[in-house]
Amino acid sequence: MKKKSLKPDASLTIKLGESDTVKLKLGDVMVPPGKPISLKKDFDPAFTADYKNEKAAKAKVRANVKRLSKLQDMLYAQDKYSVLIIFQAMDAAGKDGVIKHVMSGVNPQGCQVTSFKTPSSEELDHDYLWRSIKALPRRGEIGIFNRSHYEEVLITKVHPEILERQKLPPSARGEDVYEKRYEQINHFENYLVENGTIILKFFLNLSKKEQARRFLARVENPDKNWKFSDADYAERQHWDAYQEAYETCINRTSTSHAPWFVIPADHKWFTRLAVSEAIVRSLSLLPLAYPTVSAEHKKMITAIGKKLKKEV
Amino acid sequence: MKKKSLKPDASLTIKLGESDTVKLKLGDVMVPPGKPISLKKDFDPAFTADYKNEKAAKAKVRANVKRLSKLQDMLYAQDKYSVLIIFQAMDAAGKDGVIKHVMSGVNPQGCQVTSFKTPSSEELDHDYLWRSIKALPRRGEIGIFNRSHYEEVLITKVHPEILERQKLPPSARGEDVYEKRYEQINHFENYLVENGTIILKFFLNLSKKEQARRFLARVENPDKNWKFSDADYAERQHWDAYQEAYETCINRTSTSHAPWFVIPADHKWFTRLAVSEAIVRSLSLLPLAYPTVSAEHKKMITAIGKKLKKEV
Repeated sequence: MKKKSLKPDASLTIKLGESDTVKLKLGDVMVPPGKPISLKKDFDPAFTADYKNEKAAKAKVRANVKRLSKLQDMLYAQDKYSVLIIFQAMDAAGKDGVIKHVMSGVNPQGCQVTSFKTPSSEELDHDYLWRSIKALPRRGEIGIFNRSHYEEVLITKVHPEILERQKLPPSARGEDVYEKRYEQINHFENYLVENGTIILKFFLNLSKKEQARRFLARVENPDKNWKFSDADYAERQHWDAYQEAYETCINRTSTSHAPWFVIPADHKWFTRLAVSEAIVRSLSLLPLAYPTVSAEHKKMITAIGKKLKKEV
Repeated sequence: MKKKSLKPDASLTIKLGESDTVKLKLGDVMVPPGKPISLKKDFDPAFTADYKNEKAAKAKVRANVKRLSKLQDMLYAQDKYSVLIIFQAMDAAGKDGVIKHVMSGVNPQGCQVTSFKTPSSEELDHDYLWRSIKALPRRGEIGIFNRSHYEEVLITKVHPEILERQKLPPSARGEDVYEKRYEQINHFENYLVENGTIILKFFLNLSKKEQARRFLARVENPDKNWKFSDADYAERQHWDAYQEAYETCINRTSTSHAPWFVIPADHKWFTRLAVSEAIVRSLSLLPLAYPTVSAEHKKMITAIGKKLKKEV
């Protein structure tokens, strides 16, 4: 197992334009574009860097959440960039939990979460990116996708019958449908980045054993019963196929403009730490600033200020 | 000035259905339906109940935010009711601030804020409630409107030329347009309540003098310059017309199903306290509960649990 630390040891450049290039250093959990990874060999789901336990990580998470709240305030005021954060994972890996713990504390005015479920018939009457595009964050805002267009190269690959039901024309099917889709997704995301969206993609990397433990907890704790059904257990039977689909997907779509992060997910407290760290470091590198006003605007409001002084 | 306390001294019943009737007691800041109020005589913008200062209120706000986070978790899991919270106010009354301070802490997965600005031409090509309807919260979710359909009986009343530009057919205009709109809004909101939405409407009641102070701070603090323009000062010249429009609107649309709260807004810390209190008290009265499972479901997952035990 390759030893990875949470100290930056590799760098990635997100080029938005001439003057706003973001150098991202997160070699520990980030998938380097162009260097194929093996989920099994390169990433340990139980990895916790130098952190021994939840207690040690808590202060760092709290500080990250606080910092994120400040960065978002500036992002929103500046109204120039938008941030798209994508979460993908096997069931029970903790997508909902990490959204709750990392993003609660962020002003909901400027942060929108979209959960993608089974496509509706209206959605199936459009191309597969349509519903993602509708849910993209506005300038100044953070958009979070709980599952995403990536399901279209994951669940459909594991269950080809889903693709069969999607009423696709011949040009959108065939042997090379997934190769095409990886390329389409890369082009789509590149377009977004070129137009001012920062894209961060997180795969929460859970072990098969830990999934069994979490499922079992949902069975044994009556308060959690509603979170578990036989459908979840049925999907677990396709574990290897999903891992393979994820690995290929990550290798094909971790690009310099929209990198994937493989986040250790066997310890929830470390997942929160790693995700919050990746988001905060990425946003910190953006040229965020509160808006400034022109000399003319300044002069105009100064004149109004004189009138206001008589009214206070 | 009528003395008002933050202890419940009047009650309001929100009838959702036979088995889920909500008795709301918030007589101190709530507008009793059918009893016309005078903004000037009945509500003091500087009112702070028994709280002497921010320090005294802080613990209560923090407790409310924490409680709200728990209530929202249940609301979301139950997936039955939705909550619509509307904020209306004069400029600088603190709408954005109260959203930030009361709602940060809430899981953004399940809470969506919509800011209504000048209608787009697509929006003007529909009836005036259309864009509000599009932004309504889903079941299980909290929707926050920063401004709302109420602008259509407020700003349009103060600036009749706006109405002129709305391409309305004769049936949607005429002398009684506002009387009609109050009734339409009441019917619209009643429909939503009957279908499971809780509606809470907050008017942040700022004094004219305090607005001048806050505007002046935006002029004098360079970091806040971008928040102020001559358009804001121009709107201030219509203060009395706006107050009259708000008073009439509140009297006509504070109903037993969707009450208005007039929130003292001269002290930001008290605004947060009163709003968080009203939201928490209202949600506490809902029959919220985590989902339970059927005996059959229980049996099925117990059987799966036995298999899972061999895999952990």
